[in-house]
Amino acid sequence: MDKAQLVKELIKIFGEDSVLHHVEDLMVYEYDFSIDSNRPEAVVLPRNTDQISQLMDLCEKNKIPVVPRGAGTGLSGGSIAVRGGIVVSLARMKKLVKHEPKNRYTVVEPGMVNFDLSNEIASTGYFFAPDPASQRASTIGGNIALNAGGPHCLAHGSTTNHILGLELVLPGGEVVKTGGAAPDRPGYDLTGFIVGSEGTLGIVTEATVKIMKIPEAVQTFLALFHTIDEACEAVAQVIGAGIVPAALEMLDKVMIEMIERAMNAGYPPDAGAVLLIEIDGLKEELGDLQDTIIDICRRTGAFDVKYATSEEERQKLWKGRKSAAGALGQVAPNFYLHDGVVPRTKLPEVMHKVMEIGREYNLVVANIFHAGDGNLHPSLLFDAREPGVIERVIEAGEKILKLCVDVGGTITGEHGIGTEKQEYMTWIFSEADLETMRKVKDVFNPNDTANPWKVFPTRQSCGEVSLKMRILKSKPGMEEAWI
Amino acid sequence: MDKAQLVKELIKIFGEDSVLHHVEDLMVYEYDFSIDSNRPEAVVLPRNTDQISQLMDLCEKNKIPVVPRGAGTGLSGGSIAVRGGIVVSLARMKKLVKHEPKNRYTVVEPGMVNFDLSNEIASTGYFFAPDPASQRASTIGGNIALNAGGPHCLAHGSTTNHILGLELVLPGGEVVKTGGAAPDRPGYDLTGFIVGSEGTLGIVTEATVKIMKIPEAVQTFLALFHTIDEACEAVAQVIGAGIVPAALEMLDKVMIEMIERAMNAGYPPDAGAVLLIEIDGLKEELGDLQDTIIDICRRTGAFDVKYATSEEERQKLWKGRKSAAGALGQVAPNFYLHDGVVPRTKLPEVMHKVMEIGREYNLVVANIFHAGDGNLHPSLLFDAREPGVIERVIEAGEKILKLCVDVGGTITGEHGIGTEKQEYMTWIFSEADLETMRKVKDVFNPNDTANPWKVFPTRQSCGEVSLKMRILKSKPGMEEAWI
Repeated sequence: MDKAQLVKELIKIFGEDSVLHHVEDLMVYEYDFSIDSNRPEAVVLPRNTDQISQLMDLCEKNKIPVVPRGAGTGLSGGSIAVRGGIVVSLARMKKLVKHEPKNRYTVVEPGMVNFDLSNEIASTGYFFAPDPASQRASTIGGNIALNAGGPHCLAHGSTTNHILGLELVLPGGEVVKTGGAAPDRPGYDLTGFIVGSEGTLGIVTEATVKIMKIPEAVQTFLALFHTIDEACEAVAQVIGAGIVPAALEMLDKVMIEMIERAMNAGYPPDAGAVLLIEIDGLKEELGDLQDTIIDICRRTGAFDVKYATSEEERQKLWKGRKSAAGALGQVAPNFYLHDGVVPRTKLPEVMHKVMEIGREYNLVVANIFHAGDGNLHPSLLFDAREPGVIERVIEAGEKILKLCVDVGGTITGEHGIGTEKQEYMTWIFSEADLETMRKVKDVFNPNDTANPWKVFPTRQSCGEVSLKMRILKSKPGMEEAWI
Repeated sequence: MDKAQLVKELIKIFGEDSVLHHVEDLMVYEYDFSIDSNRPEAVVLPRNTDQISQLMDLCEKNKIPVVPRGAGTGLSGGSIAVRGGIVVSLARMKKLVKHEPKNRYTVVEPGMVNFDLSNEIASTGYFFAPDPASQRASTIGGNIALNAGGPHCLAHGSTTNHILGLELVLPGGEVVKTGGAAPDRPGYDLTGFIVGSEGTLGIVTEATVKIMKIPEAVQTFLALFHTIDEACEAVAQVIGAGIVPAALEMLDKVMIEMIERAMNAGYPPDAGAVLLIEIDGLKEELGDLQDTIIDICRRTGAFDVKYATSEEERQKLWKGRKSAAGALGQVAPNFYLHDGVVPRTKLPEVMHKVMEIGREYNLVVANIFHAGDGNLHPSLLFDAREPGVIERVIEAGEKILKLCVDVGGTITGEHGIGTEKQEYMTWIFSEADLETMRKVKDVFNPNDTANPWKVFPTRQSCGEVSLKMRILKSKPGMEEAWI
C-alpha cells in the first residue's frame, strides 16, 4: 500500500482531524526521551477502542508496524517508530470511565495522565500509588507498558501491583479483556503478563486500576551522612526494623554538590550522602515511627536529621530530589541516565565500584536513586563535543549494568528495555528463556506488527550496537526530574 | 507403550524405590480433597529436576498425561489423573536451597510444606506470608499451582505476590527459569503467569519466594454482632479508615452455632455474626490501632469486643475459626464447600441472597469467610443418603456462584478451577478470552500432556456436568479447617 492510499484508509477510520501525515506535523512524534528517533509514516489520534480495532486489522493485513505512544516521556525508545509505521497517540483517550471508591478501583482510558488520575479522585479520598518522576506528563498507558516505578513504589509496589484488569486490542483487531475488579481471578494471569510488555502484545485501551486511601498523615525526613556506607547501613536498619517507608531515596556527594550549585535546596555541601525518608499512615502511628527512624539514622552516623513540620517544609525537603535532572542539565551539557537494580545488601559495594568505573573512564558520575528498592540511577556527565567521549560513556554504562547483573541484580528497574537495552537481554535470559517469551509474543503478535524491533535482542554485532548511541540530552521543559 | 514397558522406562529414570505401579500402592494417589478420583498408571517420586526433565521428555514423546501432586489437599481436583497417566509426587523435593534474609528471599523446592518453610526460617526473624488453612500439609508447589490465599492474605496478598522466580520443566523436558531475586525484572512476567496455572504449563521444580519480617507484635480481637449487616458495616469502616488488618474473618449465625455445638470456643450462641480481626506490626503502632478498631466495632453495633492479652488467649480466639471444618463434620454427614468472591460493598446483599438460596433448596448453609477480601466460603450441609439431595446441592451451589458473578465477583478466590469449575469459566471469560489463554497454554504445553482436562471448559453438556458430583466429605484427619 503506498502512503497516499494508507492515509486515505486511515482517514476513513479516524476522520480528517485525527490523522497526521505532513512532515511538519510528524516531527514531534519522531522523538521520545531516549536518543533514538525516526519519522513514522503517519500518526493517528483515536477516540475509542473500535477505531483502534479497525486500525489493527488494517495494519495486520498490510504488515504495517503500529507503535503506541502516551506522553513520549519514555527513556528507552519504546514509543519510537524505529523502522516507520503508524504511531498511535492515545492523547485523546483520557476519560475516567468509572470510579468505585468503596470497592477500591477506578476504570480509566490509557491516555489519562498519571497525576490527573490521582487529582480527579482526590476528593473521594483516594489516589493511584505508582508515582514515576514523570507523573505530571506520563500516562497510565505508558506506565503500564513499562511497569513504571517511582519513589513511593517501595511501600506499594510498581505499576503491575496496581493493575486489576485490562482491555487490549490484538494485532488483527480482536478485543480481549483480562482480569477485572474482583481480586485474584481464575485462569492465567494475562493482566500481569501484559503489564511491562512495552506494547509488543497489542494496544491497551482501558485499564481497571487499584486505588489506595490517601494517608491521613505524612512525615518526611532528610538525614545527612558523612559517607554513602553509613547511609546504606541506615537503609538496611530501617528496613530490618520492619519499617517500610513510603519512600527511601538516596543522593550521593556528587549529586548533592550539583543540586547545591544549581539551586539552594539546603543540602550541606560537606555531606557525603543524603537520605530522604517519607513515612505515611494514620496520625497516631507516625509519632513512634518517627522516633525509631531518627534513632536509627543517628546510630548509623547521621550528623543531622531534619524533618518537616509543615507541608511547605516537606515540599522544601523534596525540592532537591525533584530537581536532580534539572541540576545535572545546568552543570553538564549532556548526561546519560542509567537504570539498574541490585540486591539491597550489595548497595555499598556497588556504589564504590560505580565510582571506580567513573574514574577509570574519566567521567563524572552522579547518583540519585531509590535506595529501598536497590534501584540505581547513575548519571554519567559529559560534553558530547569532546572527541571520543561518547564511546567512553557507552562502555562505562555497559560496565555498570554488567556489574548490577554480576551481583545478582538486573539491567532495568523501571525505564524498560525498548531499543536501549535489547542486546543486554542475553545477560539475564538464556536462549531458551527468550525463545519461550518469543513464542508467547507470537500468540498475540505473530507478524510483529505491534511495536516491532523492541525488547528482544536483534542479534546485531557489537559494532552496530555501539552505533546506537543513546544520550539523555538536557531538553527544554525538563525542570521536573525524569529520574 | 504398554504399562510394563512404561514402568521399565520409569524405573530407568527414577530407580526401583521411586516408582509405584501396584494397584495397592496407587490407591492413595487416586484422591485429593475434591470428590473426583481416578487411578493413575504409575506414581513417580523424583529427587531432582533432571529426573523430571527426562520424564517430561518420555511422556511428551508418548503422549502420556503428567499430573503433578503436592500434598493432595486441593479442593478442585487439580491433582487427580482424571484420565490416567503418571502422577508426579513432589514429596521428596522439599529442600531449602538458599536463604537470604537480608535480601528478603528464600529458594525452596516445591515439595516443601508451607508451614515447614516458615518454621525453618523463623530463627532468622522471617516468615512466608501466604497461610492457606491447609498450611500444615499443603506444599509450596501446590500453593503456587492454585495461587493459594489464606486469612493473612488480606494485608499481604495471595501467593502470586510472594513468588519472585521459578524453575519450570516444560513438556518435552526443557528447563526454563523465570524471574529471580531482583525485583521487577524486564521482559514478560512469566512468573506471575505460571502462578495459578494449576500445572497446565509444566512442573515447577524450584521457587524463589519473598519472605517477610515476623511482626514484633500481634493483637487479635473477636467482635460479636447481632446481625451480619452490622458486621459487614464494621468491615467497611475498618478498611475505610485506612487500616488493613492482617486478618479479617467473618462467621455467621449458623456457623457460630455449629462451632459451639461441636466445641466450646466461647462464641455466644445468640451472636448473629462474629468478626475475627488481627493486626500486626511494631509494638508502638498497635495500641492506637486497637482503640480505633474497638471504637469502630462498638459504633457499628458490636455488643461485645474481646481481645487477647496473651498468646494463649489469642490461640483461644482463633480456635473456633480454625475448627470450622471439623465442626461442620460433626453436625452433618456431608458438606459441599464453595469458594466465590464478591466486591466488599456487596457482602450484605450477597449474604442475604445466599441464605435465601439455602431456604429455596431446603439446605442449611453455614458461612465462614475472608470478609476483608470479599472471599466467601458458604458450606452446604446435607446427608448424601437422602434421595435427590445431591442434585439440590449442585443446583444451589451453582446459583450461589452465579450470584457472585452477577454482582461483579468471580467463581473462585483460592481453591482453583481444576475439574470442579471448568464449565463455569464461560460465565466470566468470553470465547476470545479463553482462546487467547488456550493459545498461550499451547506455547508451553501443545499436546496437553501437562495436567490435561483441567481449568478449560470441556464443552460437556449440562447433563454430563451434573454427573460430575463433587462433595467435600468429612474425611479423617480433617481437624484443621480446610476452608
